Amino acid sequence: MAEETNVSNETNYSEPNDNASFLAAVERSKKVEADILVNPKKYRVLTGDRPTGRLHIGHYFGSLQNRVRLQNLGVPTMILIADYQVLTDHDAFDKIAENTRQLAIDYLAAGIVPGDDVMIFPHSYIPEANQLMLPFLTLVSNSELSRNPTVKDEIQKSELSVINAGMYTYPVHQACDILFCKGNVVPVGKDQLPHLEITANIARRFNKKFCKKGEPIFPIPTALLSKTPMIQGLDGSKKMSKSLGNTVMLSATADETAKLIKKAKTDTERLITYDPENRPEVANLLRIISLCTNEEPSAIAERLGEGGGGALKNALTEALNETLRPLREKRAQLEKEPEYIRQVLLSGAEKARAIAEQTLKEVRRAMNMEI
Amino acid sequence: MAEETNVSNETNYSEPNDNASFLAAVERSKKVEADILVNPKKYRVLTGDRPTGRLHIGHYFGSLQNRVRLQNLGVPTMILIADYQVLTDHDAFDKIAENTRQLAIDYLAAGIVPGDDVMIFPHSYIPEANQLMLPFLTLVSNSELSRNPTVKDEIQKSELSVINAGMYTYPVHQACDILFCKGNVVPVGKDQLPHLEITANIARRFNKKFCKKGEPIFPIPTALLSKTPMIQGLDGSKKMSKSLGNTVMLSATADETAKLIKKAKTDTERLITYDPENRPEVANLLRIISLCTNEEPSAIAERLGEGGGGALKNALTEALNETLRPLREKRAQLEKEPEYIRQVLLSGAEKARAIAEQTLKEVRRAMNMEI
Repeated sequence: MAEETNVSNETNYSEPNDNASFLAAVERSKKVEADILVNPKKYRVLTGDRPTGRLHIGHYFGSLQNRVRLQNLGVPTMILIADYQVLTDHDAFDKIAENTRQLAIDYLAAGIVPGDDVMIFPHSYIPEANQLMLPFLTLVSNSELSRNPTVKDEIQKSELSVINAGMYTYPVHQACDILFCKGNVVPVGKDQLPHLEITANIARRFNKKFCKKGEPIFPIPTALLSKTPMIQGLDGSKKMSKSLGNTVMLSATADETAKLIKKAKTDTERLITYDPENRPEVANLLRIISLCTNEEPSAIAERLGEGGGGALKNALTEALNETLRPLREKRAQLEKEPEYIRQVLLSGAEKARAIAEQTLKEVRRAMNMEI
Repeated sequence: MAEETNVSNETNYSEPNDNASFLAAVERSKKVEADILVNPKKYRVLTGDRPTGRLHIGHYFGSLQNRVRLQNLGVPTMILIADYQVLTDHDAFDKIAENTRQLAIDYLAAGIVPGDDVMIFPHSYIPEANQLMLPFLTLVSNSELSRNPTVKDEIQKSELSVINAGMYTYPVHQACDILFCKGNVVPVGKDQLPHLEITANIARRFNKKFCKKGEPIFPIPTALLSKTPMIQGLDGSKKMSKSLGNTVMLSATADETAKLIKKAKTDTERLITYDPENRPEVANLLRIISLCTNEEPSAIAERLGEGGGGALKNALTEALNETLRPLREKRAQLEKEPEYIRQVLLSGAEKARAIAEQTLKEVRRAMNMEI
């Protein structure tokens, strides 16, 4: 979960990795992926984003498509908008509501269909889920939180001069987000594994300390390390992000898309080849076309032949605009229906809250706090 | 707030103290004490206990009497049972519900009268208050939490081998307890001042960061450093507590009280004198009698004359049993009405929750998180 903008964080699980726990996570992920096809209703996906802006093509190919795929397989899906998390490392809070609305529009336009089993909601609207912070905080040690590598990394990136306790404890809040609805499948990148490990530990410890044997309240969630495509910024930089201006927003028009891609970095060779090692920028653009057309990048290169950067960019523009057209049309329509968007969020929150209330009731009983 | 068992923590504000911030707190407390007599409805008291057991005479003279006094002055009073806080430094959670019930009985027996302005409730029943943890955690730094002297001290006392994050962050949770209902008066001992300072800082920072100028959401709470009596354990040890067996529970019978007091520590001198420096145990028993009869300890000593420890103990037994008789009669009656106790707690929680919902709504609007 959390902000999934860094789609260049390779999570292709075929890459060599000597980390045993990572390999174990990959094995678990593969098993669940296979079982989902047979037993989709055994699972509940918990996923989401921080409302820091609209989504771009990195999010689309990196996570949105996968969410829609899981939903369409029949897996109950909770899409949580982590509005409180904006405060942990951003000072600006003036656009949270608008960004929440825009995220919802992006989800709906991409094919998420809210219903009995599929909810879109901001977590600030689920007090019974947030209350789980209290018991959960007592189940993790300070040193566990201090040594979390992803939090360390995010603290460094955020350039916060003072580490606020919200930043420090947000993996515990993420555990609330996942466990309140007994989410047992969480699509994440490799960098999010330490967080999910904290959630798994909290679930295990709660069950062991407070529940009768054989009657656990919380599932141990599995990370779904889906094979996300390695795409980088259009300028060749590792990270694709709105603030770097090296991506295409889902909400961009076809013309804006063309203009942005014209500025993409390529090289001076006329002959287009798929050579990721020596021609990373060209390879990156070919991979994005490939994501749109499902051709192999090398086949696309062959087709483009001696066309040079111009032909490559034209092909990318066309492919992207073609792929995103239905989404953009739906998006434009949804932009005109603010009350509908509001209802989607409110009804998602209402359903999620009913689930949270039930979980809190079970938690209260297990902890002997029932009046 | 928090566990107020350590009634020997002298908060008599006439003692010399060179700490400027403490003296400033004393000044503010005196001002509010005076104003409460004139404008009781300008204030809302937030106070309470952890449900770790029944209350004893230390609690009665140290805090319960004062709460009843404030209530009877017409100050709206919230008595919060901090059930989640039991988990921060205790492993045992099997008796939380029963202890909560017993606390409620002690409050009612002592003269607390629930109504529109007076509520008794466990904080685990107020999700909208607990949710304030999320924004509040982002308003304090890790280093502020680390250097809190009271938390340091409690961590040491608790002999926890691992510091859990619930212990570390509980002053933030205490801020939620106080601020959700806009409590502006908190009766505390000197040792609790650092906590209340964190609450005041959170209130100030929230108002500054999120509120329009001149429209703060949270009050800056004042510590009410009431002149609590310095009473120690019956065995002469500093701390009076159930686990040390050196106190008398409010629920004890007259006979049990007599037996307990028989074991109290005195000295071998026949002549009873009030000499706190040289005869601390005798002085302590005289002070407890004084709290019951409102005589000066020295006058009581004079009356007892050459009676020795036996006469002193008899006088204490009689005075205590006399003072506690109405409370104990009411207590015995309430013990027979579990459903009434349950209704007191549920209706307190319901009213407190309505207040919390309103506050959370204001907070959500200020933070631009309203859908």
